[in-house]
Amino acid sequence: MVYLTRSEHFNAAHKLYNPAWSYEKNEEVFGKCANENWHGHNYELLVTVKGQPSPDTGFVFDVKKLSNIIKEHIIEKIDHQNLNLDVEIMRGKMCSTENLAMAIWQELVQRLPAGVQLHAIKLYETPRIYVEYFGE
Amino acid sequence: MVYLTRSEHFNAAHKLYNPAWSYEKNEEVFGKCANENWHGHNYELLVTVKGQPSPDTGFVFDVKKLSNIIKEHIIEKIDHQNLNLDVEIMRGKMCSTENLAMAIWQELVQRLPAGVQLHAIKLYETPRIYVEYFGE
Amino acid sequence: MVYLTRSEHFNAAHKLYNPAWSYEKNEEVFGKCANENWHGHNYELLVTVKGQPSPDTGFVFDVKKLSNIIKEHIIEKIDHQNLNLDVEIMRGKMCSTENLAMAIWQELVQRLPAGVQLHAIKLYETPRIYVEYFGE
Amino acid sequence: MVYLTRSEHFNAAHKLYNPAWSYEKNEEVFGKCANENWHGHNYELLVTVKGQPSPDTGFVFDVKKLSNIIKEHIIEKIDHQNLNLDVEIMRGKMCSTENLAMAIWQELVQRLPAGVQLHAIKLYETPRIYVEYFGE
Amino acid sequence: MVYLTRSEHFNAAHKLYNPAWSYEKNEEVFGKCANENWHGHNYELLVTVKGQPSPDTGFVFDVKKLSNIIKEHIIEKIDHQNLNLDVEIMRGKMCSTENLAMAIWQELVQRLPAGVQLHAIKLYETPRIYVEYFGE
Amino acid sequence: MVYLTRSEHFNAAHKLYNPAWSYEKNEEVFGKCANENWHGHNYELLVTVKGQPSPDTGFVFDVKKLSNIIKEHIIEKIDHQNLNLDVEIMRGKMCSTENLAMAIWQELVQRLPAGVQLHAIKLYETPRIYVEYFGE
Repeated sequence: MVYLTRSEHFNAAHKLYNPAWSYEKNEEVFGKCANENWHGHNYELLVTVKGQPSPDTGFVFDVKKLSNIIKEHIIEKIDHQNLNLDVEIMRGKMCSTENLAMAIWQELVQRLPAGVQLHAIKLYETPRIYVEYFGE
Repeated sequence: MVYLTRSEHFNAAHKLYNPAWSYEKNEEVFGKCANENWHGHNYELLVTVKGQPSPDTGFVFDVKKLSNIIKEHIIEKIDHQNLNLDVEIMRGKMCSTENLAMAIWQELVQRLPAGVQLHAIKLYETPRIYVEYFGE
Repeated sequence: MVYLTRSEHFNAAHKLYNPAWSYEKNEEVFGKCANENWHGHNYELLVTVKGQPSPDTGFVFDVKKLSNIIKEHIIEKIDHQNLNLDVEIMRGKMCSTENLAMAIWQELVQRLPAGVQLHAIKLYETPRIYVEYFGE
Repeated sequence: MVYLTRSEHFNAAHKLYNPAWSYEKNEEVFGKCANENWHGHNYELLVTVKGQPSPDTGFVFDVKKLSNIIKEHIIEKIDHQNLNLDVEIMRGKMCSTENLAMAIWQELVQRLPAGVQLHAIKLYETPRIYVEYFGE
Repeated sequence: MVYLTRSEHFNAAHKLYNPAWSYEKNEEVFGKCANENWHGHNYELLVTVKGQPSPDTGFVFDVKKLSNIIKEHIIEKIDHQNLNLDVEIMRGKMCSTENLAMAIWQELVQRLPAGVQLHAIKLYETPRIYVEYFGE
Repeated sequence: MVYLTRSEHFNAAHKLYNPAWSYEKNEEVFGKCANENWHGHNYELLVTVKGQPSPDTGFVFDVKKLSNIIKEHIIEKIDHQNLNLDVEIMRGKMCSTENLAMAIWQELVQRLPAGVQLHAIKLYETPRIYVEYFGE
């Protein structure tokens, strides 16, 4: 079993705001992240797949195809968007990096061909904060 | 003359949108950056000052004080804000990285003590795009 | 289960020196790292916690609180210190990066609230050398 | 159990080309990577070992010795070489990063002393593509 | 005057070999870099332009257009190529990073629109070696 | 004129302490940096030279020779040392990064062959703080 990782980049606006709470409660819990006028990030997304290298190619999976899958199903739908308003996979969810990583997993896990397993989503919100999700 | 640089971090939402233009013209010129629901970035700000090292301290300027000046006058007013809506120094300006770097220069150049000159503002919008401004 | 990581920075002086050995034996085993006048590093500390994201916040744990815990219990006690002379959690231990990572684990594991588990300590001694500890 | 990682650097030329296939099939599968005149990369190699820190040294393994083992058995034989033509451990194999990581594992696993286990090979082909191999 | 920089990536094979010299002289001067079977690098290319920000857009130059110019005139012709054999702008030249940076300048300087000046080419051969060229 | 930069790494212990001042004054001015038990850093040193590329080699200067000059005259004398106690070029000076960069310039400027000029010393004290010196 070999693990292959591809990193892609997107940026987006979001806010952390629970509509079931008062404005004051949101301010208290989320601080500056609750700013009603939004803030944003450059996200760095690392997608790891695993499998047996093919004897014909030496590849677990063609990294160009992996890049294209990530771009088609994630980047094109999230990049330069507002996570709370524009992004289908975050509809009705708190726009935390944790929830975004899980939503990206759900979207990508069904897009990989037989013989290639999704292993991990690693998502940087800033260079000093990241989350990882392994599907369970 | 020795040059001293301190890097600080902030993130913000913005859009590129010229109100004198039609929606279509904005879309044509700015593409995804014109998204009316905003997008955002992690900005990395590098501030360079220059001067003669003090014989007493060996410092051009105390880098802790430089950091505090940047935080008080820039980071606290921009971090987790919307550049178009919330940020005084960008009022009435296109929220490009070029204009933001120039506005940061104007704000900081007046905050440094005698003997220390502002030399450069370097502002990363993404890890692959940055602008520099030297005050003229 | 989602994993959340926060990175913090500190720097410190140390030496590698086993007092049960002769000066010559220390030189032989630790080379330049045994320099009796000390050397030092910029350490980068990555702390990973794991848990279920809260339905209310989308957070495994508030990363600002995680940062504050790391700063209060680790950074304030280690930053700009001498690991051999000044740092309580290294008292009587060889000041290797391995032992420092384990000591940081012991200190932090008791500081996290219910529902949040410490998963990993990753500690860079230089950009090209790091250790990881998972508590067992 | 503590994990210790050392990063080393090499660069090399290679191509992805399956001699059992036609030129056209190679072009179709490998695209630009099949360029018969070769292309190349700066590879970043991270080697992780694990073990119990020694009470005498605080080390899982002397990182200087680990560096020397990697340099003697891998870097000196691969750096500035052509992976397809010059490198013994890739003889008769497709020169994918997956296969190179596995070959480096096979070479290093037999070079470590008792009490130190090889845990992982992580190999960056570009800053945005890497593979990992854990020996099984 | 504001300076705008865009970074792009390519990789290539090359060797350093002066055909006017003997094999032994090439070995003596270029060492491993003279390997007749080639070696290669991931190059990071930073292109800096300068100008006055437009009042309409806030841009010195549309960074997306700058990226497209670099990709069309440089990356598509160099990426995954052999600098000595495949690359028109290096024909008849020693394939040093110095010469490659100068050739990239010559190619790009004629591609920019009025009002935008090319300021610098910065070219990383490895993360620890780079050259800069300012056109004179 | 082309500029060539080589980056090298060292680490060292130091403190900021002016012996002409009282302990209290040192604490007030230098804060944690005055810790009498020392602290330390991983320094990253970038040395830039400039010149005309040789028609025979394409080089401004052989980067391997530049690396060897830096290692022989700087790294071997500073790495794993105490800047205040062990390092000849800092004798009698405040051990600020500014003064260290200037001392490195003085040491290297006399070591380069004819036709190669020293252009800049850039010295990182931490990833977020650096100084530059151009010799005047």
